[in-house]
Amino acid sequence: MKWNLSTFGRQLGADSGIDSLMQDLGTAMSGSQSFHMLGGGNPAHIPAIEQVWRERWREIMASPREVERILGNYDTPQGSPAFLEAMADSLADRYGWPVSSDNIAVVNGSQSAFLYLLNMFDGKKDGTSSRVLLPLNPEYIGYADQVLAPRAFTSVPPIVELIGDHRFKYHIDFDRLQITPEIAAICVSRPTNPTGNVLTDEEMRRLDELAGLHGIPLIVDNAYGAPFPDIIFSETQPMWSENTILVLSLSKLGLPGTRTGIVVAPPEVVKSIQSINAVCGLANGNLGQAITAPLLRSGALYDLSRDVIRPFYETKSKQALAWLDQYLPAEVPYRIHVSEGALFLWIWFPELPVSSAELYARLKQRGVLVVSGHYFFYGLPERHEHQDRCIRLSYAQAAEDVEAGIAIMAEEIRSLMG
Amino acid sequence: MKWNLSTFGRQLGADSGIDSLMQDLGTAMSGSQSFHMLGGGNPAHIPAIEQVWRERWREIMASPREVERILGNYDTPQGSPAFLEAMADSLADRYGWPVSSDNIAVVNGSQSAFLYLLNMFDGKKDGTSSRVLLPLNPEYIGYADQVLAPRAFTSVPPIVELIGDHRFKYHIDFDRLQITPEIAAICVSRPTNPTGNVLTDEEMRRLDELAGLHGIPLIVDNAYGAPFPDIIFSETQPMWSENTILVLSLSKLGLPGTRTGIVVAPPEVVKSIQSINAVCGLANGNLGQAITAPLLRSGALYDLSRDVIRPFYETKSKQALAWLDQYLPAEVPYRIHVSEGALFLWIWFPELPVSSAELYARLKQRGVLVVSGHYFFYGLPERHEHQDRCIRLSYAQAAEDVEAGIAIMAEEIRSLMG
Repeated sequence: MKWNLSTFGRQLGADSGIDSLMQDLGTAMSGSQSFHMLGGGNPAHIPAIEQVWRERWREIMASPREVERILGNYDTPQGSPAFLEAMADSLADRYGWPVSSDNIAVVNGSQSAFLYLLNMFDGKKDGTSSRVLLPLNPEYIGYADQVLAPRAFTSVPPIVELIGDHRFKYHIDFDRLQITPEIAAICVSRPTNPTGNVLTDEEMRRLDELAGLHGIPLIVDNAYGAPFPDIIFSETQPMWSENTILVLSLSKLGLPGTRTGIVVAPPEVVKSIQSINAVCGLANGNLGQAITAPLLRSGALYDLSRDVIRPFYETKSKQALAWLDQYLPAEVPYRIHVSEGALFLWIWFPELPVSSAELYARLKQRGVLVVSGHYFFYGLPERHEHQDRCIRLSYAQAAEDVEAGIAIMAEEIRSLMG
Repeated sequence: MKWNLSTFGRQLGADSGIDSLMQDLGTAMSGSQSFHMLGGGNPAHIPAIEQVWRERWREIMASPREVERILGNYDTPQGSPAFLEAMADSLADRYGWPVSSDNIAVVNGSQSAFLYLLNMFDGKKDGTSSRVLLPLNPEYIGYADQVLAPRAFTSVPPIVELIGDHRFKYHIDFDRLQITPEIAAICVSRPTNPTGNVLTDEEMRRLDELAGLHGIPLIVDNAYGAPFPDIIFSETQPMWSENTILVLSLSKLGLPGTRTGIVVAPPEVVKSIQSINAVCGLANGNLGQAITAPLLRSGALYDLSRDVIRPFYETKSKQALAWLDQYLPAEVPYRIHVSEGALFLWIWFPELPVSSAELYARLKQRGVLVVSGHYFFYGLPERHEHQDRCIRLSYAQAAEDVEAGIAIMAEEIRSLMG
């Protein structure tokens, strides 16, 4: 680079896990190279859902001046009034949450919401040393580079529960969680990306209580969660409280190309998000809001999530687990995290003789995209034994790709460890 | 706010000029309140241009799987390969610039590009004191809160050329420009937002030379400029060089609701922007790129800019100037910046007895939205005599609104100073 980069430029503009993941994903989805795409989190193209979007595309064209309004007008930095209202009313109706439009802010994708939320709060002490607490690790790759210097993440290793011969589950180690004064916020994804874990209602209650006790927000990433897209296979309830900032997304419903994220928060936080939106990007894209506002009002979006999207992914998850157990050599130790939600399986090879980054590279060479697990471990006091021995595998794409990808991965594992 | 805000949260999440401007604009454009909208920079709804967008909406629906691809797939963080190529090829063809896809990055609106670009470079000295140089002041309101603490802007007062009884023009005071070691980048909008000034080719050449000499980038905000939307009424040439980062936008073509900005820069900078995109927002919205890629390839976008958009705004500018001279009382001293481009007129009332912020508030009370000029002065060594005596007025909306707004504004001026 001929020009000097700043700390900001070096931190955000350097190679990052999320950048290489998104490059892989974009390349695979644009069809310019042929891969078995078990990598990034592109949602599935579900025919029954696609029909709904296509119908909305047609309705928008048929509605006078609506195409012109969507393309030609800036939105307010908080979001479109009609969408904010539909979102708030439907949440209030369904869950009895005391929310109105003042509790809702739209952002250009939930990833952007986290850039704002992970940086906008301070601990009770001097701001320069503020930290964000991740109660569970591994945690979403996409936060890792978002906390602007000099702040940082802090976390504790998970409790590992072994289940049967080939399954396991992470739990939050509440005994080791410490909310020290420099902690600015607690952040969790639910379902957990990358593991497919879903924090229980009891775990959420305890985190909420801790946040309230220490006067800091609990930020919950609901990109895959309930009430939509509802890719949760365990019995849990959506949660929102005065201690909680809940972040929703239209992406995993099947609308990632519209970049629409939604923050449900106290009105003062919504006002701040609105202002940050204006400074950082003027306003949000209109398309995702325009497509979904009537579907929120009618409740169709909630019904489609429960009746179509959730069962679709649950079936695919079971199928992918069966293929893994079928193709992976019986003599090789492997454990898969129980699949409670999201669109990933998280596989731990306790005796992997190469790093997971090396396994990723070998699989890419063979036309299979996965994500190396090492990116999802950060903020920990020391290196975790799982850190270089796990991969994340998406089962969202076509069944033949998922099966072929798993078969090739199993072959590679056999040649490495057989 | 029940939670502590960080420096980031306080700086970006507090009331800012750009936030209040965008709130006014969003409220006016959503039609929830009725205003004569001479405030924010929403582009006009030009019927001949709207037909083109509507036709593309229909074509996309008719093209197999295109709706599904636009809505359902994440883009690469650099932008869609087809759009990047169409953009680069058309610039290379028309201007002979040595650019390929590697020189193009898409961002969610050019406002976001400036958040990245104003923060990613450092001066030659210690990064903590880096500054961005604005060679001309007043300058775009939207940069003012984008430079993250502890960096800052620096600028020099403009040379004011008085023209006739009621016109004037700002020039860069090159003699006072100092490129000290802490200067990280030079930044200008061309046409200048808010004044409608267009820096001459010679001024651009000198800035480019200074940037090259000091090894820092010249960042040029071309949101209103050539080759598209081409809202420039003076004789100038688009410029790009190895010292320049050129930022284009689809917004003022009439597509602000798609949030699509374009950075033309050396490949290393494009790679950084791509990575920052991934960290901050995963990927860009697909819609604007999908609508315009074929229009770039065919050249239609360039032709429409030259043959439809530019004449449309030039006519409106002349009309608005005529109304101002007609309605403003002859006895009141006023000067309008010569209108060389963009969609604003910048009016200076040398003897305004209230602040421009107060004038804005009075006009809003009377149903007319303008923008107070004080927001556009920042980075200056001392308060400028124009700072509280100017307003920015958009002439992009319907003629009857522009005329009615101007008439009410003139009435208010008369009651204040008559």
